[in-house]
Amino acid sequence: MSETKVAVVSAEERAERAVTTGTKAWELFAEDSSVVAARVNGELRDLAYELADGDVVEGVAIDSADGRDILRHSTAHVMAQAVQELYPEAKLGIGPPVTDGFYYDFDVPEPFHPDDIEKIESRMRKIVKEGQKFSRRAISDDEAREELAGEPYKLELIGLKGGSEEAAEGANVEVGGGQLTIYDNLKRDGSLAWKDLCRGPHLPTTKRIPAFRLMRSAAAYWRGDEKNKQLQRIYGTAWESKEALEEHLHRLEEAERRDHRKLGRELDLFSFPDEIGSGLVVFHPKGGVLKRVMEDYVRQRHIEEGFQYVGTPHISKQGLFETSGHLPYYADTMFPPMEMEGSSYYLKAMNCPMHNLIFRSRGRSYRELPLRFFEFGSVYRFEKSGVVHGLTRVRGMTQDDSHSYVTPEQAPGEIKHLLSFVLGLLKDFGLDDYYLELSTRDPESDKFIGSDEEWAAATKILEDAATETGLDLVPDPGGAAFYGPKISVQCRDAIGRTWQMSTIQYDFNQPARFELEFQGADGSRQQPVMIHSAKFGSLERFYGVLVEHYAGAFPPWLAPVQVVAIPIAERHNDYLQKVAEQLRERGIRVEVDESDDRMQKKIRNAQLQKVPFMVIAGDRDVEDGAVSFRYRNGEQDNGVSVDDAIARVVDAVERRIQV
Amino acid sequence: MSETKVAVVSAEERAERAVTTGTKAWELFAEDSSVVAARVNGELRDLAYELADGDVVEGVAIDSADGRDILRHSTAHVMAQAVQELYPEAKLGIGPPVTDGFYYDFDVPEPFHPDDIEKIESRMRKIVKEGQKFSRRAISDDEAREELAGEPYKLELIGLKGGSEEAAEGANVEVGGGQLTIYDNLKRDGSLAWKDLCRGPHLPTTKRIPAFRLMRSAAAYWRGDEKNKQLQRIYGTAWESKEALEEHLHRLEEAERRDHRKLGRELDLFSFPDEIGSGLVVFHPKGGVLKRVMEDYVRQRHIEEGFQYVGTPHISKQGLFETSGHLPYYADTMFPPMEMEGSSYYLKAMNCPMHNLIFRSRGRSYRELPLRFFEFGSVYRFEKSGVVHGLTRVRGMTQDDSHSYVTPEQAPGEIKHLLSFVLGLLKDFGLDDYYLELSTRDPESDKFIGSDEEWAAATKILEDAATETGLDLVPDPGGAAFYGPKISVQCRDAIGRTWQMSTIQYDFNQPARFELEFQGADGSRQQPVMIHSAKFGSLERFYGVLVEHYAGAFPPWLAPVQVVAIPIAERHNDYLQKVAEQLRERGIRVEVDESDDRMQKKIRNAQLQKVPFMVIAGDRDVEDGAVSFRYRNGEQDNGVSVDDAIARVVDAVERRIQV
Repeated sequence: MSETKVAVVSAEERAERAVTTGTKAWELFAEDSSVVAARVNGELRDLAYELADGDVVEGVAIDSADGRDILRHSTAHVMAQAVQELYPEAKLGIGPPVTDGFYYDFDVPEPFHPDDIEKIESRMRKIVKEGQKFSRRAISDDEAREELAGEPYKLELIGLKGGSEEAAEGANVEVGGGQLTIYDNLKRDGSLAWKDLCRGPHLPTTKRIPAFRLMRSAAAYWRGDEKNKQLQRIYGTAWESKEALEEHLHRLEEAERRDHRKLGRELDLFSFPDEIGSGLVVFHPKGGVLKRVMEDYVRQRHIEEGFQYVGTPHISKQGLFETSGHLPYYADTMFPPMEMEGSSYYLKAMNCPMHNLIFRSRGRSYRELPLRFFEFGSVYRFEKSGVVHGLTRVRGMTQDDSHSYVTPEQAPGEIKHLLSFVLGLLKDFGLDDYYLELSTRDPESDKFIGSDEEWAAATKILEDAATETGLDLVPDPGGAAFYGPKISVQCRDAIGRTWQMSTIQYDFNQPARFELEFQGADGSRQQPVMIHSAKFGSLERFYGVLVEHYAGAFPPWLAPVQVVAIPIAERHNDYLQKVAEQLRERGIRVEVDESDDRMQKKIRNAQLQKVPFMVIAGDRDVEDGAVSFRYRNGEQDNGVSVDDAIARVVDAVERRIQV
Repeated sequence: MSETKVAVVSAEERAERAVTTGTKAWELFAEDSSVVAARVNGELRDLAYELADGDVVEGVAIDSADGRDILRHSTAHVMAQAVQELYPEAKLGIGPPVTDGFYYDFDVPEPFHPDDIEKIESRMRKIVKEGQKFSRRAISDDEAREELAGEPYKLELIGLKGGSEEAAEGANVEVGGGQLTIYDNLKRDGSLAWKDLCRGPHLPTTKRIPAFRLMRSAAAYWRGDEKNKQLQRIYGTAWESKEALEEHLHRLEEAERRDHRKLGRELDLFSFPDEIGSGLVVFHPKGGVLKRVMEDYVRQRHIEEGFQYVGTPHISKQGLFETSGHLPYYADTMFPPMEMEGSSYYLKAMNCPMHNLIFRSRGRSYRELPLRFFEFGSVYRFEKSGVVHGLTRVRGMTQDDSHSYVTPEQAPGEIKHLLSFVLGLLKDFGLDDYYLELSTRDPESDKFIGSDEEWAAATKILEDAATETGLDLVPDPGGAAFYGPKISVQCRDAIGRTWQMSTIQYDFNQPARFELEFQGADGSRQQPVMIHSAKFGSLERFYGVLVEHYAGAFPPWLAPVQVVAIPIAERHNDYLQKVAEQLRERGIRVEVDESDDRMQKKIRNAQLQKVPFMVIAGDRDVEDGAVSFRYRNGEQDNGVSVDDAIARVVDAVERRIQV
């Protein structure tokens, strides 16, 4: 019996092992039931893969990113099998794993109905229970064409094999780049239950699918091209355990409950009128309050941090964006130009070029640096219709955009200053779970301007400042803007989703393009470094994240209405109007509900509107100069003196706490 | 001797008079040396005009609007005579009166030099002193052509006689509509000094020109068309007295001194970078402070007055502006569209259509009215390059735009509310000299939408509200927007110029076009009235007017820097930094001048920057906890305690007074 030497690696260790020649990967991991595939010499393989001498082998656990992809793709196969068993006329499209799940496309005469989905799910459970084996088989192109003669879409994919990456988009999961393979689903008795053209890898058997759920079906064009035939896509999800599945479904439910588009309607905060156009938000009065509080906060903080408020137009002639280097590079993401008096005017997609004009509007001295400009810059960017999403992906957005002009020596200090500024801001808004991402250039790409030395030095400055915060720092190679590296703050919201918020970008490029100069202490002309930074990032996006983070139940300082005063009977209206007046004098946003509704209905309305505080008054309260003080969660203190009630509200607002 | 009966009228009285037939107008006004022409049956005539039976005659005083026009036009003749006497080759263009003066165009081989202008002015004085008579003479077209054979431009004007108004534009002053006349300038001995084709009337003699001044010369195309030959235009001014001329020249000097474009540069407030485009302003840090103070003030006031802050995009699809009726009507004043995804997107030129979308984003009840929306609406309007002027005529402007939705019954109250709001605002900004203008439709024009009854009712509501203020109310027939009548506040600035500021517009048209509805108390669907109003009007324009009104020396609450602290020697820096810190804690904008300049230079710099207050400290002050407190006008109090100094500054800011 010959021997084969392989290296078995894990996160913790690397061990040489001698195994019998012909050993399959699964034999190495027989004791670890979580392993569902193997990474051999960097390539993902089935556990049935036969090891060769010198192979480096790593187990892929089902709860790893790769493991989940394999699980989900295998579940997609099971779904397709179930569909073809139930609907033999169904032709197969493709069925890749996607974030948190999978889908498979089918050419069927009729869209699937919810009843169909249930039937399919039920058939899938049967297949899973049967423990069918995923069995890999290499096959020539001609054989594949013969075997799959009844699957026109698979035949098309085979035709794309070896074509350009673009041509094969969406087909990759099936055909890979070279050798075609078919995965047979084999029953316990070895008979063929179903098969699919697929590059794999897969779970060993269907029994290794611990938990799955079909989610919904929707129409989808073959290969994403609306010129092609419309297929029916079924989405599903699969997880390493029933608990993980439950958690996922709960997160989905929570995300739906918190969906800022839904809450925006329910709380009358904002809308996206069709008449105006996609991705263009209109803030309603209640939503305008939150917008204003955010604006006031961030402007005040900028002034406190030494920034100067400036203002620039929303349009400019084309030449400005050529000087800055954004054109023609950013042309695709800008709105089309307006042609006027022989010039092309663009809606601005960024504010920096205009701030540069302010910098060079007169001579500058080293004494003025750091010179910090800040504005609410409304910019317009062309996002594809399919990508536009509520407030988090818009076409018109307001950046709280700042540019710090500093000497190279001042750059590290300014980066730290900005980092500390943004982290404090995020905390004030109740977002205190975050990590940093360091976006650097891709040295292979030619989109990045500047020398190796410049990139290295700037990247080091950002990295040092980021490290000093003690926060997690995640690399993002190739993610930088063309003009320099970037730190971004990635926030986790109340249900664990991550959002890119604030950004700090180092720029050694635009100061040169705009020929920015200052007079140094020695009288020489020197070039400043420019540091771009946005605290909210986009005000609209931050707003959307806040709505979801708080599920619309904002902390009092952000709440559009902070207090609703509720008279038990009409005769208590005047009393509460006086209380309201006192609250208004303290800057509190208060409404008195003088509607004809009964008290319980008024309380319920205020709760639905997620108002933080209610003050309720009846005869006894009027006599005593008191109110019943009620919190959003239903807790209520009776007989609270008006002064105390006002103090509670003002305190919560001033301390920016959640209640 | 036959008798002729005429009526002599003046502002005070109307008297029948019998005069000898053949009496000339001047004989009626022989005792009033201010009368320089006569209005006979509504037509302006020379004083030499022979009266006919039944004529209604009014004297035209030299200091009336008509009198000044006649004076100025006569002075233009004198100038043309002087030019042709000095430069016989000069050919005459036209020479009308204009606001505050006159010009005459000449075809000359070379532009005039300042020396020439002096020579011409001197020759004019000689002609004035000679008391040449302006003598009118009717002439046939053929005779005119013969007499003016050497004046090609006059021949062209004769050719235009009787042509369309447009064709004869600029020529009217010469040829009128019918009978051609020539005015001869006759010397004392009756000999002809000079003559011009002119419809008149004129002063009796050149001696009646009390005061004039030539101002400048510039190139001008014949009849304003750049396809025509370039002529040389000389501008002059003439007044009813030397004092009036002096006052005018002083006003010009003041206007130049106050020119906001010049002050904007000197005080580093704003600029109009060529790179961005004409009429698009960039606010620099110092200018941004004033902008911010204005924004904060007006937003706070709107909230106090029951308005709700909303926010809308700067662009919209075309259909919205068709619904509102602005397109195609306003297309010429809007920027050209951006074509995208099969839609035309326009930069908005007005905010009302978007506010209407907010109104109808959900059902509305009578309980919600008046519903008042307010935003800083940045709008873009295409003004011709030649019209764009600093901040007062821009292409991109921010309106503090509000729309009140009210029941028809609430409209009068809301109009009064708005009027009182805007007048209070203007007063707070130190503009307290104003009158109202009531813009109504032109019943002849078809641009105005709505029934006679609607216009009459709305106009009456505005008129009543305006009358109630007790302010002067000036009619502006035909000046309304297409959708309803308007009140505007016309402010006089520190040097007496008038600016249109706030506007209040009644609109019965857009609510119908947008099908806006609310549920009345009786449950029926009713249509609200919409009242547009802008308090600053355009923030940019108001800003420009403020700069000129204050000549850049803003009252402390508006000043970009309110206090400059000036150490007598470097050792006093720390002390003043502490004083500055105390001021900052009170919200005061303060700078400490730690430059290497000497104290006198620092004081001068602060004065040049028109900073309201200086606090100066030396050894003695540091010992005493005091400062020298210096006002912008040079007054200085020594040994003022720091507390007192701070109190003085805070008091002036809080009370919004000028110092």
